[in-house]
Amino acid sequence: MSARTTSPGTAAPTAAKKSKLMRCFVMKRIGEVGMMEKPLPECGPNDAIIKTTHALICTSDTHTVKGAIGERTDHTLGHEAVGVIHKLGSNVTGFKTGQRIVVNAITPCWKCHNCQRGYSSQCGDMLGGWKFANLKDGSMAEYFHVNDAEANLAPIPDNLTDEQAAYCCDMLSTGFVAAEYANIPIGGTVAVFAQGPIGLMATVGARLMGAGFVIGVESMPDRQKLARHYGADAIVDYTKEDPVEAIKHLTDGEGVDAAIEALGSSKTFENCISCTKAGGVISNVGYHGDGEFVHIPRLDWGVGMSDKTIRTALCPGGSQRMKRLMRLIETGRVDPLPMTTHRFAFDEIEKAFHMMDKKEDGMIKPLISFE
Amino acid sequence: MSARTTSPGTAAPTAAKKSKLMRCFVMKRIGEVGMMEKPLPECGPNDAIIKTTHALICTSDTHTVKGAIGERTDHTLGHEAVGVIHKLGSNVTGFKTGQRIVVNAITPCWKCHNCQRGYSSQCGDMLGGWKFANLKDGSMAEYFHVNDAEANLAPIPDNLTDEQAAYCCDMLSTGFVAAEYANIPIGGTVAVFAQGPIGLMATVGARLMGAGFVIGVESMPDRQKLARHYGADAIVDYTKEDPVEAIKHLTDGEGVDAAIEALGSSKTFENCISCTKAGGVISNVGYHGDGEFVHIPRLDWGVGMSDKTIRTALCPGGSQRMKRLMRLIETGRVDPLPMTTHRFAFDEIEKAFHMMDKKEDGMIKPLISFE
Amino acid sequence: MSARTTSPGTAAPTAAKKSKLMRCFVMKRIGEVGMMEKPLPECGPNDAIIKTTHALICTSDTHTVKGAIGERTDHTLGHEAVGVIHKLGSNVTGFKTGQRIVVNAITPCWKCHNCQRGYSSQCGDMLGGWKFANLKDGSMAEYFHVNDAEANLAPIPDNLTDEQAAYCCDMLSTGFVAAEYANIPIGGTVAVFAQGPIGLMATVGARLMGAGFVIGVESMPDRQKLARHYGADAIVDYTKEDPVEAIKHLTDGEGVDAAIEALGSSKTFENCISCTKAGGVISNVGYHGDGEFVHIPRLDWGVGMSDKTIRTALCPGGSQRMKRLMRLIETGRVDPLPMTTHRFAFDEIEKAFHMMDKKEDGMIKPLISFE
Amino acid sequence: MSARTTSPGTAAPTAAKKSKLMRCFVMKRIGEVGMMEKPLPECGPNDAIIKTTHALICTSDTHTVKGAIGERTDHTLGHEAVGVIHKLGSNVTGFKTGQRIVVNAITPCWKCHNCQRGYSSQCGDMLGGWKFANLKDGSMAEYFHVNDAEANLAPIPDNLTDEQAAYCCDMLSTGFVAAEYANIPIGGTVAVFAQGPIGLMATVGARLMGAGFVIGVESMPDRQKLARHYGADAIVDYTKEDPVEAIKHLTDGEGVDAAIEALGSSKTFENCISCTKAGGVISNVGYHGDGEFVHIPRLDWGVGMSDKTIRTALCPGGSQRMKRLMRLIETGRVDPLPMTTHRFAFDEIEKAFHMMDKKEDGMIKPLISFE
Repeated sequence: MSARTTSPGTAAPTAAKKSKLMRCFVMKRIGEVGMMEKPLPECGPNDAIIKTTHALICTSDTHTVKGAIGERTDHTLGHEAVGVIHKLGSNVTGFKTGQRIVVNAITPCWKCHNCQRGYSSQCGDMLGGWKFANLKDGSMAEYFHVNDAEANLAPIPDNLTDEQAAYCCDMLSTGFVAAEYANIPIGGTVAVFAQGPIGLMATVGARLMGAGFVIGVESMPDRQKLARHYGADAIVDYTKEDPVEAIKHLTDGEGVDAAIEALGSSKTFENCISCTKAGGVISNVGYHGDGEFVHIPRLDWGVGMSDKTIRTALCPGGSQRMKRLMRLIETGRVDPLPMTTHRFAFDEIEKAFHMMDKKEDGMIKPLISFE
Repeated sequence: MSARTTSPGTAAPTAAKKSKLMRCFVMKRIGEVGMMEKPLPECGPNDAIIKTTHALICTSDTHTVKGAIGERTDHTLGHEAVGVIHKLGSNVTGFKTGQRIVVNAITPCWKCHNCQRGYSSQCGDMLGGWKFANLKDGSMAEYFHVNDAEANLAPIPDNLTDEQAAYCCDMLSTGFVAAEYANIPIGGTVAVFAQGPIGLMATVGARLMGAGFVIGVESMPDRQKLARHYGADAIVDYTKEDPVEAIKHLTDGEGVDAAIEALGSSKTFENCISCTKAGGVISNVGYHGDGEFVHIPRLDWGVGMSDKTIRTALCPGGSQRMKRLMRLIETGRVDPLPMTTHRFAFDEIEKAFHMMDKKEDGMIKPLISFE
Repeated sequence: MSARTTSPGTAAPTAAKKSKLMRCFVMKRIGEVGMMEKPLPECGPNDAIIKTTHALICTSDTHTVKGAIGERTDHTLGHEAVGVIHKLGSNVTGFKTGQRIVVNAITPCWKCHNCQRGYSSQCGDMLGGWKFANLKDGSMAEYFHVNDAEANLAPIPDNLTDEQAAYCCDMLSTGFVAAEYANIPIGGTVAVFAQGPIGLMATVGARLMGAGFVIGVESMPDRQKLARHYGADAIVDYTKEDPVEAIKHLTDGEGVDAAIEALGSSKTFENCISCTKAGGVISNVGYHGDGEFVHIPRLDWGVGMSDKTIRTALCPGGSQRMKRLMRLIETGRVDPLPMTTHRFAFDEIEKAFHMMDKKEDGMIKPLISFE
Repeated sequence: MSARTTSPGTAAPTAAKKSKLMRCFVMKRIGEVGMMEKPLPECGPNDAIIKTTHALICTSDTHTVKGAIGERTDHTLGHEAVGVIHKLGSNVTGFKTGQRIVVNAITPCWKCHNCQRGYSSQCGDMLGGWKFANLKDGSMAEYFHVNDAEANLAPIPDNLTDEQAAYCCDMLSTGFVAAEYANIPIGGTVAVFAQGPIGLMATVGARLMGAGFVIGVESMPDRQKLARHYGADAIVDYTKEDPVEAIKHLTDGEGVDAAIEALGSSKTFENCISCTKAGGVISNVGYHGDGEFVHIPRLDWGVGMSDKTIRTALCPGGSQRMKRLMRLIETGRVDPLPMTTHRFAFDEIEKAFHMMDKKEDGMIKPLISFE
């Protein structure tokens, strides 16, 4: 994933000569973050520039700083942000400056082969839809750039706050897709491994997809409590019992119809395969950051003939999905706000970032305000 | 897979007291095979007894004898056989004795939870549809027993020989399901790893499922030739070049839409993941016999976010599928006979078995005649 | 649908000579119902006999009496019933007499070609899974017969009442399948036409399948109220406004992702097609009882090129589905009891039947007690 | 379908002031065609201008002239054309002028809500992907305009002629999608109603999708012959026998797994529903041009509960699909050239058009050369 794609449209826009400066929170190099000033991004004919109002910090930002996707220099972080339209490219229609919008963490071009195939998160190349803070500067800045704006800008309904909308960028989209890909039969059983913000939203997603019994696997009491709030019917604490055995016990020995991996650990992934019944689905959204291999337990995989399916996904983007995700908040199907455990001004983002890295003070998600 | 299910209906029928004796080719214990006599199997009310006419030896029989599914004593081998109906259970309607029939290697009960869920190969429990030579005696005998006969007996059309029909038991059903599960877009690209009889039928299956370009990965010249005969558009010899690089080269650097694992080796499985494009499918039908784990190469799997899907399957059974498979032979879509490289009388089966174990004399499939 | 299938296993069991008599509520002929005595049904080797405890009357029973499926003589009505096992066939394992069980309205054989294809409601032939009160005597009797009992008997969990379980026979299974077949994108929009008991459960089903906005089309105030209780986000009264226009208005002019037809009228079906966006699904579970044709409005169907899909379904049966449906009641996802508007003893069933026919006194569902 | 969408990007480009003139074959008004001169189309930043080399006339062009999509004035006809790139918009990368390319009949924007949903043929609004000769000038001109060029231009491989590539614009894409949407089980049975060029390609498509038995319904001897050439296993002449009865007879009374409507007549559509087995698919690609309603035969539809599915499609576009379709020609899976029954210079197009309208001289497809 350290390879940067070079396809047209994904290149980071270079700064204009005398443009206004803006403050950005950047990865200076591996292991070091800080504030710096950069010129405002340029706006190509199909692009938009957004003035940031609110943002969320993601654990993957902390991975990036540790070097998970390779070295970066003075690279603006962040991929969960909302704001108002500051500037629109000459070809962009259907929007106006000043409009409140949200942008998914993934911003596909919508026209390359992978986008046409329906895999827009893999735009251009594998994982290539992930441009913010990966292939170009991210959104933890006073302004940020959006490629292919007509498809990637989603207007925020009047009855939604910025904070609510910000959760659609990644938390709802990724958490829910884990459930959407899990092929859950109505009334079926689902285990969700890890109840961080993605896992919590996968728990909600499993219920939205019809699960009759959702098991949250989590050891931290605060997260267990939030998991129950979000609809987990049972909690398995893997520090106190073998999670596979516990899940089988809770499902009359059958195992679950689907297991969701929302952590990114080979051991957890193995447990997902082992606790799933024949014909079931292991739906992975965890980012696996370590090791050459992730392991499939051969026997529990039915020596490769169990009809078990392993799916993977990267946060699906696009304005029409964002509209549907926001609708679920509007009509009360999900309320993301209990995940906001802390609030900071943009000035304080470095502190927030370090707390997120260490999950200090029970932090789930910190909201950053730019206003 | 050494665990035998104990669910009702899958138990091997015990022999009647004074019944006629029949000759069987058995696994005497791990590492030892031979002929022996057993009483004819009993026929329960929903069962049938078949008088065998022709059979094929499968490589998995040789795995079984080596201990792959644990110890067995005087266990009749074989799961690819055709014959005529010798006896019908009192509840079985729609058939008559003397009728020519074929029975899939997998004989589900069709009524348990897994069968109702649509995973009949996982009847009762994982892999539980595989009863012949696993949960009960196999079909390398003068007579064999069929559970749930109404659903598992498939009449052979008059215009098909026994030999043609025998290939539907496992070779066509397993080879084709690999392609059916591969989600091949019309005109898409497919790599089939290993061109043994299952791989050859996966090659045919890939074309039947609309592949526009099929790459057969194989090193043995005879099998390469047969792969081309069965529709491979290109051959990659993994002993002469890196198969992943070669496949990428053949697909303009994109990788394939689907890779089929028809061998059962972790290394081959890894290559399948590496050579598949984002959003593609790895369809595994290989029986993985060794090691605690099968390995997923983390980076080529897109760190778990590539939209790649790993499917697995066990030879789907049932009379309606067998009817469709035989129709494909009837209408000339596939001719399995070039796979029959050797022919033996039942008396000579031990010799055939040892040749199959070592793939001597370029053996692909040996046909055993009981007449 | 008046044609009776003659496939083995679906024939109504003939009565034993001197068997005990039981009371049955029958269709004496078209237009006439009443009580009569019949011998207890015989129990074949794969069958079960159930002693009825509770039943629900279905509107389709009233259609049957009006001649919708042709003439019947002294035909026991009913297909929504629960009870205890009175007798088990000699081949049936895994159950014991006295056990509380529920049986779906549809009782497939699970072994014919259509069952093997995954269309068990179409067992044997189109609609052939519908055996109760169609191909054999129904369940509005002190005892009733269940074919293929191992797959069709579902044990009722201790924490569920008979009344709750009875709703799984048809109301939940049919209402939910309407939503399961509707391919609802998460957060998508759904219109459910008619809020009788099937439509109400389709409303619940749409939410269980992830709908972000559910529109109930209904004119009767009591049913509108119940629709809101069950999760409709908006109500359209088709007697006060054009439902297609109203639905488009509620969806920013787009139309809905899916429309569910839960009534069985050509006009309603036409509206379903007209109010659905291009690429959407019209999911029909309404029983269309009249006319030679049901009509597709040509232009709103995009002259046959709109990517709209029309699905149809008949109440899916089987014990594993029943287990999942009951789980949804156990874990509080749905509470069917508000649909029970009236309660009767079996003695009073004729009165209940006539009230159901005319929907008197705001009747939604009447519960019949046999105890 | 007469309503023109007004979404940005689909508007016909207005002519430049002093631009070079080009010759066009136009619909002057309903019922009248002819040649005229127009300025070359303008090239927006995301567009391309193609110099036409070869084109095919489609029957739908003749429908358009008869008024099927409403009045048009001096409207250039045509949507099946290949050529070389004359001009590229400033934002278009990855192509160069002079390059041989083919453009699908449908040219989506790839960024609107319907495109993001995966229904790019319904771009903007129902049928809105169909821009050529509908929402803007068509391609029967010396030059034509392509919107969203990066996604809609497909380079023609060196080993393919223009003529071969031209068949991918509509004939292969529409004919094949009929089969792709038909959910054909491997070895299943398919009836293709009408063996015009779309039906012929649906016949090929059915085989490419794994059909074991394909029935072509056609009365014209030349087309029957071509249907057999393209893989029909049996022919039903609906002028000599009832096609539904004939199809049932050919399928042991079962009916087909899928029926494809490639004509656009209500009677044919009704037959498709009637000849399909329960659980089967009716896949419509015929353009239904007449009447307020298309009719579903109620009883053969199982009164709305048969598990039958009715799909519809409009020629899927895009460069990645075109690449796959051309690959199928490259690797010999399909040879479209036998459909070219006549050849004309662009000068003679009016004659060709009138012959196509009347299907004179056994015309299947006329190729127009611009060179």
